[in-house]
Amino acid sequence: MIIVLKPDVTKKQVAHIIERIKALGLKPVVSKGTERTIVGVIGSEDILRVQPLEVIPGVEKVMPVLKPYKLVSREFRPESSIVSVGSVKIGGKGVVVMAGPCSVENRQMLQETARAVKQAGAHILRGGAFKPRTSPYSFQGLGEEALKFLHEVSKQTGMPVVTELMDVRDTPLLEQYADIIQIGARNMQNFDLLKEVGQTKKAVLLKRGLSATITEFLLAAEYILNQGNFNVVLCERGIRTFDDQTRFTLDLNAVPVIKKLSHLPVIVDPSHGTGSWDYVGPMAKAAVAAGADGLMIEVHPNPEVALSDGPQSLLPKKFTALMKELRAVAKVVGRTL
Amino acid sequence: MIIVLKPDVTKKQVAHIIERIKALGLKPVVSKGTERTIVGVIGSEDILRVQPLEVIPGVEKVMPVLKPYKLVSREFRPESSIVSVGSVKIGGKGVVVMAGPCSVENRQMLQETARAVKQAGAHILRGGAFKPRTSPYSFQGLGEEALKFLHEVSKQTGMPVVTELMDVRDTPLLEQYADIIQIGARNMQNFDLLKEVGQTKKAVLLKRGLSATITEFLLAAEYILNQGNFNVVLCERGIRTFDDQTRFTLDLNAVPVIKKLSHLPVIVDPSHGTGSWDYVGPMAKAAVAAGADGLMIEVHPNPEVALSDGPQSLLPKKFTALMKELRAVAKVVGRTL
Amino acid sequence: MIIVLKPDVTKKQVAHIIERIKALGLKPVVSKGTERTIVGVIGSEDILRVQPLEVIPGVEKVMPVLKPYKLVSREFRPESSIVSVGSVKIGGKGVVVMAGPCSVENRQMLQETARAVKQAGAHILRGGAFKPRTSPYSFQGLGEEALKFLHEVSKQTGMPVVTELMDVRDTPLLEQYADIIQIGARNMQNFDLLKEVGQTKKAVLLKRGLSATITEFLLAAEYILNQGNFNVVLCERGIRTFDDQTRFTLDLNAVPVIKKLSHLPVIVDPSHGTGSWDYVGPMAKAAVAAGADGLMIEVHPNPEVALSDGPQSLLPKKFTALMKELRAVAKVVGRTL
Amino acid sequence: MIIVLKPDVTKKQVAHIIERIKALGLKPVVSKGTERTIVGVIGSEDILRVQPLEVIPGVEKVMPVLKPYKLVSREFRPESSIVSVGSVKIGGKGVVVMAGPCSVENRQMLQETARAVKQAGAHILRGGAFKPRTSPYSFQGLGEEALKFLHEVSKQTGMPVVTELMDVRDTPLLEQYADIIQIGARNMQNFDLLKEVGQTKKAVLLKRGLSATITEFLLAAEYILNQGNFNVVLCERGIRTFDDQTRFTLDLNAVPVIKKLSHLPVIVDPSHGTGSWDYVGPMAKAAVAAGADGLMIEVHPNPEVALSDGPQSLLPKKFTALMKELRAVAKVVGRTL
Repeated sequence: MIIVLKPDVTKKQVAHIIERIKALGLKPVVSKGTERTIVGVIGSEDILRVQPLEVIPGVEKVMPVLKPYKLVSREFRPESSIVSVGSVKIGGKGVVVMAGPCSVENRQMLQETARAVKQAGAHILRGGAFKPRTSPYSFQGLGEEALKFLHEVSKQTGMPVVTELMDVRDTPLLEQYADIIQIGARNMQNFDLLKEVGQTKKAVLLKRGLSATITEFLLAAEYILNQGNFNVVLCERGIRTFDDQTRFTLDLNAVPVIKKLSHLPVIVDPSHGTGSWDYVGPMAKAAVAAGADGLMIEVHPNPEVALSDGPQSLLPKKFTALMKELRAVAKVVGRTL
Repeated sequence: MIIVLKPDVTKKQVAHIIERIKALGLKPVVSKGTERTIVGVIGSEDILRVQPLEVIPGVEKVMPVLKPYKLVSREFRPESSIVSVGSVKIGGKGVVVMAGPCSVENRQMLQETARAVKQAGAHILRGGAFKPRTSPYSFQGLGEEALKFLHEVSKQTGMPVVTELMDVRDTPLLEQYADIIQIGARNMQNFDLLKEVGQTKKAVLLKRGLSATITEFLLAAEYILNQGNFNVVLCERGIRTFDDQTRFTLDLNAVPVIKKLSHLPVIVDPSHGTGSWDYVGPMAKAAVAAGADGLMIEVHPNPEVALSDGPQSLLPKKFTALMKELRAVAKVVGRTL
Repeated sequence: MIIVLKPDVTKKQVAHIIERIKALGLKPVVSKGTERTIVGVIGSEDILRVQPLEVIPGVEKVMPVLKPYKLVSREFRPESSIVSVGSVKIGGKGVVVMAGPCSVENRQMLQETARAVKQAGAHILRGGAFKPRTSPYSFQGLGEEALKFLHEVSKQTGMPVVTELMDVRDTPLLEQYADIIQIGARNMQNFDLLKEVGQTKKAVLLKRGLSATITEFLLAAEYILNQGNFNVVLCERGIRTFDDQTRFTLDLNAVPVIKKLSHLPVIVDPSHGTGSWDYVGPMAKAAVAAGADGLMIEVHPNPEVALSDGPQSLLPKKFTALMKELRAVAKVVGRTL
Repeated sequence: MIIVLKPDVTKKQVAHIIERIKALGLKPVVSKGTERTIVGVIGSEDILRVQPLEVIPGVEKVMPVLKPYKLVSREFRPESSIVSVGSVKIGGKGVVVMAGPCSVENRQMLQETARAVKQAGAHILRGGAFKPRTSPYSFQGLGEEALKFLHEVSKQTGMPVVTELMDVRDTPLLEQYADIIQIGARNMQNFDLLKEVGQTKKAVLLKRGLSATITEFLLAAEYILNQGNFNVVLCERGIRTFDDQTRFTLDLNAVPVIKKLSHLPVIVDPSHGTGSWDYVGPMAKAAVAAGADGLMIEVHPNPEVALSDGPQSLLPKKFTALMKELRAVAKVVGRTL
């Protein structure tokens, strides 16, 4: 921690600052520059992080030297983590594709979609049972019934299932029926939910919040690892910006940035990220080229009548064509699919 | 709902669109313009809202005519709502001030702060028991113990208490100890939590999400009203933008905008909104001048040792001085304080 | 300047870094902490600012200690600056109001508007001659003809004139006809234009760019002061955010923030900032309460037929009523109007 | 244009609105819905675009049906445009790479860099002569001297040159020495500069403004086409968001979005877009995978001593390795490089 003092700081104020630092068991190092005096603090930065040093008279600004997260960082674990779900490995050489409908609308459409995406080469089945909807008047999901359909279709097709958990009270249900528990963007900082899934042994797919910085995203993951669950997969799904041509702004920069800062696998959801099926293909290919460990793509047999997110869903035949293209891109960047 | 068709739409596509609208029990009105054909749809827009019309071939864009919320709108209730909490009325002529420490750290500091803010003229005591912290290594609040302190100090001072609910499972505790249940910015779209407080009879203080549009903010409130609880107070507390001089960008435009669109009371939190005690005064006065129904302000007897948000807390004597200034501003804009 | 080294930095890399700093005539101070080694640099930070230290092997990050601007800062000049335009003083006790039409459409409407705003108490006449319009198909302003009308009406009413300069080649024209040269938001980083007005002796009204941080805004002003012209007035006029209920997000936080960092006067433009006449009143009052030194408000005798920005223009009678309210707010915050 | 009327609109107000529309030579079509009356307007939307219909009493909102740009749109020209610069074709099957130093620092470094990038397969030489710098204390470029070096090195290597124009008065110089005139992000809405290059016959590289929506970006291009110059190449170079891990947020979504809306070629600048050399490779590959027509990449023989943007510049050998990878990605998406 570096403490920059104000140009007009008094001797008494400097003495008070030094005393405060010593009282915390840390060692202050005062250094006088041409225009400012600086106090470097030697010892654990964690102790200082919770102290509001900025309010001490004479302090101009406080600059942390270390990153605020630990367990998720590459410094903690230099090699990339692989999260295993059944026989699927996320974070290794293979690019993992999760596909399926936005919401599970009924058993038949789920079966139909699951067979189609499996046939096209998808590894994991996605489908929403509990749906976080902006409006209370929108379809809220079939709930437990959908979980049962997912479980059934998972057995039929051999694909593990990823589905979203919204309410801490539904955790046991998800543990029973799901292979990967998804935490949605709107719950990325629902800290009780993070702690809850941190106490399960399930793999967790953590989606980036709409306005979360990458540091906040990694700190949200830190909540899960800190509870003992290291099976976390991060998912970039679009951030909120001023542009209005896409539903969100899919931030592919997050892929190389997170790969540098963290050992956790990173996947990309171009369906929610763009909100429009005709941008899903280009952005999915771009994600793989940027180094993503996987993709999450919405597929619906008849988007015209989808109960949620129809505009961003691919028809099965378009998904099949896209998988071929993705395979080619994966290959030239040293991955398999 | 207005459906704009593509310039190269075919007759067959137009027929299909019309058929789809009629099948939903609505009346299509086709209108040929110079450059585009447009289909107006007469009947309830709600039916169409859940239909992904954009994916039907030949459709260029879909433009809703009505606002997506109802119960919170001024059209539904033209006169401004007043939310009563004990003898305090929020949304009337009086500007209501909620003040207290960010977190309840112990009984003594709470008592000391409560007496000071009461003395200065505050109406409601704020204090966090469950704290949503970006980092798992930060102080997470005293939990139920803090609720008991709040309840005790509330009785001693006669001030109702507002405190945050983070976990649906704690709702009964909050119903027991709090007068106003706060839903924090990070939980604004935690829809299960919204439904839960919608089923209580407690007043709810709903904070705007960091990246929530005003439409989304009102839809979050709609979730609560839709469950039967109309005692909702909205709170602007800063949005996320690119600027880095303040912790968030307090968006005072939200005050007149919400006042125009909704009948619900709107208050402003300049402490979280700016993150810096020396901006709290100017922005608090500005909020009252802009028409806010109240303020939420953090006060701490010794910000240097606060366990959370010290940099944005006012000392009791500064708060007392600010209250005088606020009273003068309230008066010239036709309010009392 | 503080240079934080990587945890795995080698001795050779440290030696190279120290050598580079010494070669620049500066003094490095190495300090080993528990988890990182840090190099403090003593001497002028300016020399380092242009050096890409981040790319030197072994460097993790570089943290500047000083602010990047000088002449505009309160450290350079602790007392607030007053910019005089004729008998009008901007930045003193009085709140200065600039009012008039968005564009000068013809002589008659300008005269009519000017008389009305003068009558209501405005101090300076605004009116666009050269208009920066998003679309090439929108009205681009009357150009020199408008400048002549402004000059004429200025003489008739005794109000100084502020109008926008867009093209460096028009500087002599503006010097002839205008009292304050406005640099618009879209040209805030048109550095040649800044240098050009920095070489005139005219007062300059510099509007904040749509996505300019306050640091960038102050650096843009620094370009003007650096050329010798210290008569600069800053104007907050709304930034670009995700919200869509107002045209821009008027950022009133900028007022106390700039007042703290700089000695230059700050005014607020609620007309462009909100884009809607019914939000102008509340936000104008809020701006004065927040400490603004002035306001810029659009007034049009018949907004229905305005050639630009009709929706955000006030009718003269509404402006007159607002001036009374503003006067009351100014008074209670220790200002005059 | 669709005009939605307020629920409480009076007959007199409706009559006034209809009269206003007829007076403009357009045909109003009134349609009464369940909750709102709507007025569709038949005839040229351009006439209405400049009219502030929102201010007419009784009007709730105005929704344009058509896009505000014409010449740049795919409707105007369905096939993709190819911009030819010497023998280089931008917008065809080949992915075009522009590479070179951020600033031209001296003849030797330019020659060295130019030879290296030519050798690696770059098509066009980039290099700044006039530099738009946030701070007046940063290196501002060598000006005309740099243009001469660029011209000389262009002849030696056979690569056309792209360099930035900042000041309308320098247009003749750029016409003499440059093959492509670049308009930088900060000047995207410097409308006089746009008109000026619109009157030349040179190819123009228009960079997207930091906070420009794609609609505004296309309207800026429209200014150039509208003056008769159709040789415009668009360049995505990062937008301003809240995230702080990259200098800007490179918005690759812009590539498929612009490809859908416009016939103009689109290239991507991952160097400025990310601000960090280690993200340039992944984002360059992603840009090609997303469908970009080209790339602009900064290369410097010794980034440690670069006078501008050192942190984002690639060493020649890294650039050479990247070109090989880009070639492979281009191939699998049906392009050549």
